[in-house]
Amino acid sequence: MADSWVNSAESLGADLHLELTGPGSRRAVLMRALRDAVRSGRLAPGTRLPPYRSLAADLGIARNTVADAYAELVAEGWLTARQGSGTRVAQQVAPIAPAPRRRTPARAHRPVYDLVQGKPDPSVFPRAAWLASARRALSAAPHEAFGPGDPRGRVELREALAGYLARVRGVRTTPERIVLCSGAAHALRLMAAVAGGRWAVESYGLPFHRGLLAGEGVATRPIGVDEHGALVEELAGEDVVLLTPAHQFPTGGPLRPERRAAVVDWARSSGALVLEDDYDGEFRYDRQPVGAVQSLDPDRVVLMGSVSKSLSPTLRIGWMVLPERLADDVVEAKGEREQWSSATEQLTLADFIVSGAYDRHVRKMRQRYRRRRDQLVSVLAERAPQVRVTGIAAGLHAVLELPPGTERAVVKAAAWQGLAVEGLADYRHPGLPANERDGLVANGRDGLVANGRDSLAAHARDGLVVGYATPPEHAYAAALDTLCRALPLD
Amino acid sequence: MADSWVNSAESLGADLHLELTGPGSRRAVLMRALRDAVRSGRLAPGTRLPPYRSLAADLGIARNTVADAYAELVAEGWLTARQGSGTRVAQQVAPIAPAPRRRTPARAHRPVYDLVQGKPDPSVFPRAAWLASARRALSAAPHEAFGPGDPRGRVELREALAGYLARVRGVRTTPERIVLCSGAAHALRLMAAVAGGRWAVESYGLPFHRGLLAGEGVATRPIGVDEHGALVEELAGEDVVLLTPAHQFPTGGPLRPERRAAVVDWARSSGALVLEDDYDGEFRYDRQPVGAVQSLDPDRVVLMGSVSKSLSPTLRIGWMVLPERLADDVVEAKGEREQWSSATEQLTLADFIVSGAYDRHVRKMRQRYRRRRDQLVSVLAERAPQVRVTGIAAGLHAVLELPPGTERAVVKAAAWQGLAVEGLADYRHPGLPANERDGLVANGRDGLVANGRDSLAAHARDGLVVGYATPPEHAYAAALDTLCRALPLD
Repeated sequence: MADSWVNSAESLGADLHLELTGPGSRRAVLMRALRDAVRSGRLAPGTRLPPYRSLAADLGIARNTVADAYAELVAEGWLTARQGSGTRVAQQVAPIAPAPRRRTPARAHRPVYDLVQGKPDPSVFPRAAWLASARRALSAAPHEAFGPGDPRGRVELREALAGYLARVRGVRTTPERIVLCSGAAHALRLMAAVAGGRWAVESYGLPFHRGLLAGEGVATRPIGVDEHGALVEELAGEDVVLLTPAHQFPTGGPLRPERRAAVVDWARSSGALVLEDDYDGEFRYDRQPVGAVQSLDPDRVVLMGSVSKSLSPTLRIGWMVLPERLADDVVEAKGEREQWSSATEQLTLADFIVSGAYDRHVRKMRQRYRRRRDQLVSVLAERAPQVRVTGIAAGLHAVLELPPGTERAVVKAAAWQGLAVEGLADYRHPGLPANERDGLVANGRDGLVANGRDSLAAHARDGLVVGYATPPEHAYAAALDTLCRALPLD
Repeated sequence: MADSWVNSAESLGADLHLELTGPGSRRAVLMRALRDAVRSGRLAPGTRLPPYRSLAADLGIARNTVADAYAELVAEGWLTARQGSGTRVAQQVAPIAPAPRRRTPARAHRPVYDLVQGKPDPSVFPRAAWLASARRALSAAPHEAFGPGDPRGRVELREALAGYLARVRGVRTTPERIVLCSGAAHALRLMAAVAGGRWAVESYGLPFHRGLLAGEGVATRPIGVDEHGALVEELAGEDVVLLTPAHQFPTGGPLRPERRAAVVDWARSSGALVLEDDYDGEFRYDRQPVGAVQSLDPDRVVLMGSVSKSLSPTLRIGWMVLPERLADDVVEAKGEREQWSSATEQLTLADFIVSGAYDRHVRKMRQRYRRRRDQLVSVLAERAPQVRVTGIAAGLHAVLELPPGTERAVVKAAAWQGLAVEGLADYRHPGLPANERDGLVANGRDGLVANGRDSLAAHARDGLVVGYATPPEHAYAAALDTLCRALPLD
């Protein structure tokens, strides 16, 4: 059965041809068809699927479409991928429900309230201050700023960032070791190009990042997380570990000091890299920000950050702080000239930082988001005291723990009341946090056993990820009210 | 000999390991080492090289680095690549000189004058008008403009472009069929993802584009060009042809009307796509602009353009005008959210177009570049009457024909006098414009015989590509003077 993909693929191809003429995006149609084939038993557990290039050629569709569909179905647990043995139908498919693909809930019309994490309130973009910076930056820019750009990015911004990140995040670097990019996704693509191989990731994280890495040919193995961040002792022979040390995403714990030291030791002794996703490092409410792990060893840790959370995802400006030996490789992977970020925006951001406007904006937003968090906590304490709220010391979201088995129902209930919000399941890695390098990829909650450890992954807790930054000010109270009405009563 | 790559690769790996510890970028070191191995005969003609993934793993370096090095060496003629038979050492390496890799000449220090094509004069960026548009755009933008962006790009800019391109380039489209991107390189990557397979390209073109396509797994076969553009009758079973119909790049001819009709007929009858690179369509001097081929059949032609020539390469804004059936695939390949172009820049450009500032700027630049072209032609007529100048009816560059065999010496002489300028050889495709689909890839000028046809490719003429847009106004006369001193006297 295991290697019958040629026959399966042929019948698959014929079926899919029919379905692909139907409505909907090709990726969505292909995913639906593959799920149906697995559900119906037409593709048995363990069956090897054709390489995505072959299937794409058979179907006459883009290779990326098939690769993305495979990656999504791996993330959803329908398929498994192991280096060297291809993509196969998972052994146990039945227990897992496919993660919702779109960020909008199942309800047909657009939600009224949005508590999906990941987006700062777009109504507070500092338009006047940004324009003032643009005016100063464009007036002061040398002529060459309007010619082809250095792929490292504008030196004015790299200098501003080196100073800012040292002051605010404790980062140790120089402008020469900073490479600008268009955001975290771009940074991950570049790192996959220069440091491909085996990566470890946290067992909870952005499915978008996992899918992107799979598309770049990087296999990810999950390590567990608990309330003190990632279980770095589960790291084995990986080349890279992708971590969110300041504020584990999305479960919320900051990486405990001894684990920060341990992961750097691991990287030093094994020659590996730590990739530190510092996505919301500026937003910490109840005590001083935790410094970047990068400061412990600038030669072993790559820090990536952006203005997507602090200012706006619309600007498409991010940065990588690199070990000296990697900076040239990343620039090479990026290309001979700047092909991505606008230099005029880079210059504007440089002025925005140097003039102090960025600090003022972050301070203002920190106060605003802290108020929102406090409001969330107090509304829940009053109306849903049975719900525990975690991960609230920092960031733009919190996690609401739910009774086992209720998460999907709560997300659905919220959607029916016009509230978009996501469950923890959307963020869970479909793989086991096993301590073997070649650990099996499990499917479903029951498989997630972290060696008897009492980790979040082991529990595979039910929970909601509540982004409190997105709603406009006037709609926030009503959004929280709707959230409370969707929560279970006990 | 032909399949001895395993042994070769092993010795290669050992040698390369040593060299890769030396100074310089890894790609450059790898390319140098491979050239040396070919030159010394250690890698014999026809020898198959290891797949780039294997070599990258052996050497412990990024796959992209090896893939890029292979692609560059194919472009330089040291290696050949054929789908299905891998990358091999070329049969005739001796006669060809490696194309200069860097845009700077061999001289150690920075050139004083720059006549390398491809860059508009950076000193004429319309800073005040751009800032005025930014102010209007940011004031008028809805809040959602500062949230995560639609991967199609801002509708305001797509609407502005649909109108502008219809008026100026005769393009027939709707905003829904326009997808914004960060420039031509991004557009090519997206097209490679959704329409991979066999591509035909013009036998003269940007080596950067060829290298990029090779990196995306797209094999390109060259078709000849003459003074009336590409010899489209040489198209065979390709899936896509990449053309520069308005102004063949870099040789300069506009595609003759009957060839415009023929290539669209070919695409219709074979189900193929025409990819129209409209890189400088606005700059035509002696008569009305030639409309876009896209207008002949919007379902068969993809038009790609950008502001890189008309305004500045620094803004990173380009567009694709797509057949309806491809628009969704391209958006899927681009990603779920806008990851690349800044929405604030897109909104600013939309205002810049709608307010008429873009037309005014293009008109002003057209006058300026026409004056520069006239000055080039008259200086040459006076001081180097033996040199024929072609491709001058449009664009930001001209081609100076040189006596056979003199091109490299002239480029070198120019470099020694502090003038950066490129020869036609930098743009020549290393492949034969043969009429067989699986045409051999030849190496060197003598191999370029286009079936007895009297095409530019057949002649493999010597020439200089002179970009007259780049120097600042005050330095232009001196740059032309230096150019004349580097030219042969008869």
